[in-house]
Amino acid sequence: MEERVGEAEPEQQQEEEQVVNPWTVSAKGGGKIDYDKLIDQFGCQRIDQQLVDRIHRLTGRPPHVFLRRGVFFAHRDLNEILDAYERGDKFYLYTGRGPSSEALHLGHLIPFMFTKYLQDVFKVPLVVQLTDDEKCMWKNLTVEESQRLARENAKDIIACGFDISKTFIFSDFDFIGGAFYKNMVKVGKCVTYNKVVGIFGFTGEDHIGKVSFPPVQAVPSFPSSFPHLFSGQDNLRCLIPCAIDQDPYFRMTRDVAPRIGYHKPALIESSFFPALQGETGKMSASDPNSAIYVTDAAKEIKNKINRYAFSGGQDSVEKHRELGANLEVDIPFKYLSFFLDDDDKLEEIRKEYGSGRMLTGEVKQLLVEVLTEMVERHRRARAAVTDEMVDAFMAVRPLPNMFS
Amino acid sequence: MEERVGEAEPEQQQEEEQVVNPWTVSAKGGGKIDYDKLIDQFGCQRIDQQLVDRIHRLTGRPPHVFLRRGVFFAHRDLNEILDAYERGDKFYLYTGRGPSSEALHLGHLIPFMFTKYLQDVFKVPLVVQLTDDEKCMWKNLTVEESQRLARENAKDIIACGFDISKTFIFSDFDFIGGAFYKNMVKVGKCVTYNKVVGIFGFTGEDHIGKVSFPPVQAVPSFPSSFPHLFSGQDNLRCLIPCAIDQDPYFRMTRDVAPRIGYHKPALIESSFFPALQGETGKMSASDPNSAIYVTDAAKEIKNKINRYAFSGGQDSVEKHRELGANLEVDIPFKYLSFFLDDDDKLEEIRKEYGSGRMLTGEVKQLLVEVLTEMVERHRRARAAVTDEMVDAFMAVRPLPNMFS
Repeated sequence: MEERVGEAEPEQQQEEEQVVNPWTVSAKGGGKIDYDKLIDQFGCQRIDQQLVDRIHRLTGRPPHVFLRRGVFFAHRDLNEILDAYERGDKFYLYTGRGPSSEALHLGHLIPFMFTKYLQDVFKVPLVVQLTDDEKCMWKNLTVEESQRLARENAKDIIACGFDISKTFIFSDFDFIGGAFYKNMVKVGKCVTYNKVVGIFGFTGEDHIGKVSFPPVQAVPSFPSSFPHLFSGQDNLRCLIPCAIDQDPYFRMTRDVAPRIGYHKPALIESSFFPALQGETGKMSASDPNSAIYVTDAAKEIKNKINRYAFSGGQDSVEKHRELGANLEVDIPFKYLSFFLDDDDKLEEIRKEYGSGRMLTGEVKQLLVEVLTEMVERHRRARAAVTDEMVDAFMAVRPLPNMFS
Repeated sequence: MEERVGEAEPEQQQEEEQVVNPWTVSAKGGGKIDYDKLIDQFGCQRIDQQLVDRIHRLTGRPPHVFLRRGVFFAHRDLNEILDAYERGDKFYLYTGRGPSSEALHLGHLIPFMFTKYLQDVFKVPLVVQLTDDEKCMWKNLTVEESQRLARENAKDIIACGFDISKTFIFSDFDFIGGAFYKNMVKVGKCVTYNKVVGIFGFTGEDHIGKVSFPPVQAVPSFPSSFPHLFSGQDNLRCLIPCAIDQDPYFRMTRDVAPRIGYHKPALIESSFFPALQGETGKMSASDPNSAIYVTDAAKEIKNKINRYAFSGGQDSVEKHRELGANLEVDIPFKYLSFFLDDDDKLEEIRKEYGSGRMLTGEVKQLLVEVLTEMVERHRRARAAVTDEMVDAFMAVRPLPNMFS
């Protein structure tokens, strides 16, 4: 979608809808994303308590904090995946990343932390697509730089704890060809240019590399794209954990799938992790102070949260004691709701901070502790990821016990 | 380009220009293609006698009949290839075929017969692209059927006599990936959608597979697409023999090449081989009586020429003796000018037939002899091409003595 800039008429501004696609996330009038409306717009379903309970029951494990707190809040056909699982049928997970920056921020980790949980509780294989071709085209990186970033990002992904006996990570530049390319052609045949303009908002000035890309992101949804993993299992279902801005790719994929003989992939979709400055979009890689990076030292984390994290607390202690914090806009509370696993503790903060008995400083202090511990743990894990391990995860190989 | 059909206004018909692109060849007002105008439109150069003489001198071999008779009539940067050759620099040949039909007709063989001559006299390697992906997309063939046709067509190509120690034939479906795909992305980044609409006439109703295809046909022009052949030889020049309807692909390629660090490919381009019914376009695979196929038996060749070959002779013998044949429209004479290697004999026919001393029946009789011999020879050669030979030509392998 073209980013709208500059001198829109006031009437137009009022009319302006929220825009969510892989390249632009902007709310109506610069406010918060309306996720209910997004669900309507996109035609997906909300994940309700019943569905969370069903996952709990089927896996015999407590639902991940991102499920309990509604971070992953929308889905497509998740019940069909669970029906299949309940019958004893298998499925596989597919997620990915466009390797555009060296250091990941917390928002980047969310789908991978959640995907690791899904792999653990369902005991299923995972394919991770590194779209170095996409980033080479969109960010005007060289092929070599895109591939270097892909390997760097792979280390962060591996550091999330994926099981090497169930996980295949691939770079598009290295892997595309053969059965994968054949599926790209099959998808490309089913989608008109007008259709991708409608879905992605391409214009005539966009280069044809961009127009060629949607099939690349589509085809890992089809098991036959990975003959070394799923040979003869064309009926295997696919579940895609991702942020909801990727939904357009998979709307297109789901439209095409039955026409070329595959199941529609199922989706489980997250909201956006807010910037430190407030919940008006995604974090921005171009503003280092808008996000906590996995490379940030403890001191930086503390400084960023204390200086930049938008507070819903009141201007004076007196007023705060009287009115309490506005939790709807408070970033420290929001971040804790993503990463503080202890439900009782979070409930306590909601009450104490919301009523004004707890101060912003105390909440920020707790958040600094939680994030520092998490980031330090990730950094230790990442430091232990060798180039040989990256090669091993990215080797085109069978995964003999991927369903056990 | 959209094919124009039906009820054009008379004014429009008058204004209608000739259209030549990979999918449509139509002359102004249904007449003959104006090749001088095409050279102007496309911005290529005519091959003049001086250039033919230079090739003769450099190769020490008589120029191919297709050069002497102006079948290959246009070029881009051919002098630069010859300059390089004269300095002792190397180059490689690239040609291809879209495998849409089982049996080839004579028009299909022309670029391959000429390419074999170029390989022989310059002693250079050749890559042959079988665009099975293109035909799968344009002709709505299945992947499997496109690949089957690609192998069938490869047998006809091999039967033209290419040197296996200098020739690599590949199917896009099998070969695309790695360095080839990286070059596709590099090309795609440099070409806007508006640009391909201008060059190829795509519309919004065309599927994105078509929009993605031009880079596929472009990148065999770059030596780095074939690391098993030309590793470390990124400066190697490429010469593309093809029919002039393929020029749009290579205009685009030449525009992009210097921006991504490669030489522009040079081209040597042929006119179209006329249909039996007359010189108003290319032969049509959908009308078996418009062309001589390499599978036609001697009896069919004789029958087709006698019944369908458009004659420039007069209605009665008396009138013919008086006025002579109109060689400008006479298909038997035209075909002989493509395939009768003997210059003196052709000159004799030009005089005798053009003046009316020779009758159409005699010219057709000679043409039947020439074509039957040629087709029989091709059929014998093709019957000797085994599946193992196809595998050998298509194996991704080095060609150790490709320049000797």
